Amino acid sequence: MGHNYQSGSVALSKGSYKMKEMILNLIEKGKYADVRKEIVDMNVVDIAQLFEELDKQKLLVVLRILPKDMASGVFSYIPNELQKYIIESITDKEIKNIFDKLFFDDTIDFLEEMPSNIVKKVLKNTDEDTRILINQFLNYPENSAGSIMTIEFVDLKKEMTVKQAIQHIKETGVDKETIYTCYVIDNNRKLEGVISTRKLILSEDTTIVRDIMEKDVVYINTYDDREKITSLFKKYDFLSMPVVDSECRLVGIVTVDDIVDIIDQENTEDFQKMAAMQPSEKEYLKTNTMVLAKHRIIWLLILMISATFTGNIIRKFDEVLQSFVVLASFIPMLMDTGGNAGSQSSTLIIRGLAIGKIRPKDVFKVLWKELQVSCLVGIALTVVNFVRIYYFGKTDLLISVTVCITLFFTVMLAKIAGGILPIIAKIFKIDPAIMASPLITTIVDALTLILYFSTATWLLSI
Amino acid sequence: MGHNYQSGSVALSKGSYKMKEMILNLIEKGKYADVRKEIVDMNVVDIAQLFEELDKQKLLVVLRILPKDMASGVFSYIPNELQKYIIESITDKEIKNIFDKLFFDDTIDFLEEMPSNIVKKVLKNTDEDTRILINQFLNYPENSAGSIMTIEFVDLKKEMTVKQAIQHIKETGVDKETIYTCYVIDNNRKLEGVISTRKLILSEDTTIVRDIMEKDVVYINTYDDREKITSLFKKYDFLSMPVVDSECRLVGIVTVDDIVDIIDQENTEDFQKMAAMQPSEKEYLKTNTMVLAKHRIIWLLILMISATFTGNIIRKFDEVLQSFVVLASFIPMLMDTGGNAGSQSSTLIIRGLAIGKIRPKDVFKVLWKELQVSCLVGIALTVVNFVRIYYFGKTDLLISVTVCITLFFTVMLAKIAGGILPIIAKIFKIDPAIMASPLITTIVDALTLILYFSTATWLLSI
Repeated sequence: MGHNYQSGSVALSKGSYKMKEMILNLIEKGKYADVRKEIVDMNVVDIAQLFEELDKQKLLVVLRILPKDMASGVFSYIPNELQKYIIESITDKEIKNIFDKLFFDDTIDFLEEMPSNIVKKVLKNTDEDTRILINQFLNYPENSAGSIMTIEFVDLKKEMTVKQAIQHIKETGVDKETIYTCYVIDNNRKLEGVISTRKLILSEDTTIVRDIMEKDVVYINTYDDREKITSLFKKYDFLSMPVVDSECRLVGIVTVDDIVDIIDQENTEDFQKMAAMQPSEKEYLKTNTMVLAKHRIIWLLILMISATFTGNIIRKFDEVLQSFVVLASFIPMLMDTGGNAGSQSSTLIIRGLAIGKIRPKDVFKVLWKELQVSCLVGIALTVVNFVRIYYFGKTDLLISVTVCITLFFTVMLAKIAGGILPIIAKIFKIDPAIMASPLITTIVDALTLILYFSTATWLLSI
Repeated sequence: MGHNYQSGSVALSKGSYKMKEMILNLIEKGKYADVRKEIVDMNVVDIAQLFEELDKQKLLVVLRILPKDMASGVFSYIPNELQKYIIESITDKEIKNIFDKLFFDDTIDFLEEMPSNIVKKVLKNTDEDTRILINQFLNYPENSAGSIMTIEFVDLKKEMTVKQAIQHIKETGVDKETIYTCYVIDNNRKLEGVISTRKLILSEDTTIVRDIMEKDVVYINTYDDREKITSLFKKYDFLSMPVVDSECRLVGIVTVDDIVDIIDQENTEDFQKMAAMQPSEKEYLKTNTMVLAKHRIIWLLILMISATFTGNIIRKFDEVLQSFVVLASFIPMLMDTGGNAGSQSSTLIIRGLAIGKIRPKDVFKVLWKELQVSCLVGIALTVVNFVRIYYFGKTDLLISVTVCITLFFTVMLAKIAGGILPIIAKIFKIDPAIMASPLITTIVDALTLILYFSTATWLLSI
């Protein structure tokens, strides 16, 4: 998606709410000439929001009175269902107008979400070259650089003077997604250098591009995945990055505004994985019940069956429990505290691995830190718990001691498992996010109960 | 921090690893003339990484051979401890050189992290005007627009022609953080409009800025918090946004590269809160043990004590348990499944609220969705569980039924609590992230056990 340079925010400027109301009112009354006059000053993002509130017939009328480039801009910001409805309702010529002005990456994003009849209808209305290109782009793997990039960039030749380069930007820049980073290519489209428009503007007219361009370019390959791309953007603070094919030919660019969206998507995925769900990019409210259920059921089943083993441990010790039924009443507290202590550690480590601040080689540093932290936390919890159950709860001394010993070691075990398992997963090329709270809890539960009943057997000499 | 236009990535280009090794080698041998020749082609981000591997004495030597603007660039990318060491070790004149070239927001970021003796040493070496400005900026609340913004932006007057405007950019742009969005102000510095350099370059020389600038500007106030700022950047795909004071005077801008970092920080905070920790921006490996323990202990204590109530429930039913000790062995499975089912829902809802895709008014939609999903998931889990414990586990029929009934309603309860409680928190202006897995688990545990033992009492007619 292109950067947004227009900034008529209805949402923020004075009387903004009134302005939206006013336009809705004008549409209601059918005063479309007035609507057009007002709406052209609005930001396309705000118009897209307005579209969501219109009934479908009126939406088509308003779309038709928009200037062509604005119509394309608005189209790229409205939800998929509305886009689908529009394409189904408008003429071939109108489809052509929208897609002529739409940025190429927005076209691809749109087509990826549409059923085949809509894709066909759109492809029918694009020229041969674009059609070939679209088909090629639709074949890049999901989340690869190829599927994110756009082809609308400024390319220069290294022999150009600064004046010629700026003239070239003036002549070709109108349709480009960004004109702020220009890519220097040779006659075979091989990437030779990169130069910012800033540097061009701040240089003398007669300077040759070759002499001021950066030659050691950071680039990505069409098949690189989005995790690599976002980490490079974060590291270097780029506005855009070039994408090359296997022969180092420049085929597209990725821009920072898309990266902002992708960072959010990646975080959402991590949140989902860490809560034991299959990740999905689709918004919650727009996902149907069956799909939501499908994403949740598998992990719940796996974890439920794992918890069987924990149950078997209790059954093994049923004599202990028969003699001291009160022991059962501390099981929830021990399990919950173990789970919480483990999930604190695993969350910090998984996050650290995700943003690149913790690396597999830090495993011993993490182990040492978690040992110390778990000692401190374990002692504090144990003391509070002893006071609570022995003095206030009037629990038998030996039982109180059993609970407290178990509590202390549960916290240690949980924090060490939470700290180490995500790193071990990473070393074995498994996504560390699955070593989050749910799985750690299941593991720690089993260990806690073995510890608890063993200590009880020993201390209470059953 | 300024966008990075330089791109000599050692990390990516061919022979990159070798290049770093070579430079380290040259430094080792003291061949600093050669080091300088090689290093000036490198990206400041990569040089900063190199610095972390040098011993401190050599680091100072390498810093001194860097061109002034590169030295400032590298300085802004190295860790706080190294920055501190450098300021303590270099002369006043060298400090002045570094801060003259450092972007203003990087200066503020640095000073915010430093102890007062370092701050004083830096302030001593800045001119009067900058000192006043720095003190003013250090007083903005943490995470406010004022504390994030930079003052290095291009301002134009609306009477200028496009040619004059571009000339003005050429003359003043060198020190600006971005030259791609220009802000039009009146004589009282009131913000009147905004225009992209793209539009200037693509317009005729004689066009007047007033006629092509956007007048309805999206701006933020110095006291707006970063959550609002990031959501506006995401909504409008801006490269930068203007920050105004209470009288609508332009005082600074926020740029997209800082937003990328802030989005990551905000997500990290959410992860931490959802795992029942006090949020902290500091990296795990750089946080000391006491601080880590402090951030974790409070929530662990609260949740441990809450789990007492769950224990009391079991104690109330100790007769049931005495008669059917086998009931205890299903407690872990029921608690874990409830916790996991609840955390799936709460995570999706908390995330949806955080990125603005779910709003408080959607509460009934969420309730309805979770009801349906929990029915589907509950039935599947219950069937599998029944087969497992009755047919394979040879558990008594009535006990199997008790467990299955409890399981089904636990999943329902958990998913509804997980879906609704974050929204209720939001309505009461409490951070929804605290309604995550740990708290939901504690609540669901108590409900599950009441349900379990009540069903047992009734079915097993104890």
